[in-house]
Amino acid sequence: MKIRKAVITAAGPGQRTLPLQSLVDRDGTPKTALTILLQEALNAGIETIGIVISPGEEAAFASAAGDLARHLEFIPQLEPLGYGHAVACAHGFTGSDPFLLMVGDHIYVSNQSRGCARQLIEIAATENCSVSAVQATHESKLRFYGAVGGKRVPASPNIYEINEVLEKPTPTEAEQRLIVPGLRNGHYLCFFGMHVLSAQTMKLLHQVMETGNEHSTLQLPKALAQLAASERYLACEVDGFRYDLGLKYGLLTAQIALAMAGEERNEVLIQLMELIVRTTTIRS
Amino acid sequence: MKIRKAVITAAGPGQRTLPLQSLVDRDGTPKTALTILLQEALNAGIETIGIVISPGEEAAFASAAGDLARHLEFIPQLEPLGYGHAVACAHGFTGSDPFLLMVGDHIYVSNQSRGCARQLIEIAATENCSVSAVQATHESKLRFYGAVGGKRVPASPNIYEINEVLEKPTPTEAEQRLIVPGLRNGHYLCFFGMHVLSAQTMKLLHQVMETGNEHSTLQLPKALAQLAASERYLACEVDGFRYDLGLKYGLLTAQIALAMAGEERNEVLIQLMELIVRTTTIRS
Repeated sequence: MKIRKAVITAAGPGQRTLPLQSLVDRDGTPKTALTILLQEALNAGIETIGIVISPGEEAAFASAAGDLARHLEFIPQLEPLGYGHAVACAHGFTGSDPFLLMVGDHIYVSNQSRGCARQLIEIAATENCSVSAVQATHESKLRFYGAVGGKRVPASPNIYEINEVLEKPTPTEAEQRLIVPGLRNGHYLCFFGMHVLSAQTMKLLHQVMETGNEHSTLQLPKALAQLAASERYLACEVDGFRYDLGLKYGLLTAQIALAMAGEERNEVLIQLMELIVRTTTIRS
Repeated sequence: MKIRKAVITAAGPGQRTLPLQSLVDRDGTPKTALTILLQEALNAGIETIGIVISPGEEAAFASAAGDLARHLEFIPQLEPLGYGHAVACAHGFTGSDPFLLMVGDHIYVSNQSRGCARQLIEIAATENCSVSAVQATHESKLRFYGAVGGKRVPASPNIYEINEVLEKPTPTEAEQRLIVPGLRNGHYLCFFGMHVLSAQTMKLLHQVMETGNEHSTLQLPKALAQLAASERYLACEVDGFRYDLGLKYGLLTAQIALAMAGEERNEVLIQLMELIVRTTTIRS
């Protein structure tokens, strides 16, 4: 399975301006969040990126993408019908190909030289199936995420075969349906905001949407649950962290994480400490 | 002297997207940098703000201003002829009124409840003349700023009467022309990016521009030097700090300064420290 296409969703009301925010990347270069995300995909071997946006945002996103705009294909989401619909809008772009799916309001900081997207794509290519990136997450945070249940793939410490998908489960639901043997007590595998999905997933998503019974935030998790029931579908604990830029102080947190992972770590740390000391002196 | 109008310049090639960046203000609310800057002016009693932008940026700035857009008057700078020209573009807007001048790529964090702009405007109103905000700055940083020479106004510890203005002076020039009695050794009064200027200043700026001999970055300093020669013109050491968003890590620095001055200081400090520790553990 060769993955050459990526889909980034960036049409949500709170998401529209986040990809345009400016951050200094770990290489010390100021970039837009969009550029950082596009480089994550391109460094993983992606060639074309379909980006789902609100109509009329093309120019702003093209400008934020700079030189990388040549890899972009804009997919306007004509009505604000939620996340599942946004992904489904990209069906014409993905066609019969598997694709990397990323959310436009996150950035990813790998703990190794291979980016998070690359780690994920390599597993999808080797295992020849859909793979979702996950992170072992304490049950107190289950209400923020989609989560999966399954079992560890033998001899692959960070890979799991998924048999269940639930969106924002309660701790009780999780305990009943999402226990993964071998994980730390009270921890579950939660989505990381990055998936490699087979062409079949798009079909399942359309079917879920056609029934019209699911809330827009539940359509993709439902389709993924059906995927788990019909095809081999893996989860992979990626070696890295994701940062949600849409959280309060999310941009600050992402910027510090990038700086701490980069070559300018020490300079930035010193600057931070000086600033904290100076502002403490003012107040005391 | 009553100051009801402000001019913000935001048309420079590197400045266009900075006012649109998102920061959490010291009150804990996510805002665009533009909104923070507009509130700085409005809290100082300003009623209308003329904002000098590149043609075509109106919609992006109006959206970034949100509710405050009703206080804005857009002034397109039709040709990119530099800072002095950008200020001069606002002449039709300022007319025969004094005005607060701010740069669109800075934010200001006061050490007291009165904002920096308010501190400045109160002095201009009391003293009934133009006043530039300044900060005592070490000579090693003179190359970044405009600087003034003058003498302390008796019984007003932070106010100076300006008799000289130089843009980015060398330490030698500064030593010869900008010594201010009473300042710490090796320190000079450098501009803070915020001025209250009389209507006369606009006329002087136009005269300087008509001679056509000055580089665009020198036109306003030249006009201010002529102002000092023709009217009472003060400098005021504002009780606060300015943060240049256009510097590398400028947004990060500004965000931390806002957070450290705000009510969420402790929460943010803890989050920062946890993140730094976590990223240190990864590397070691």
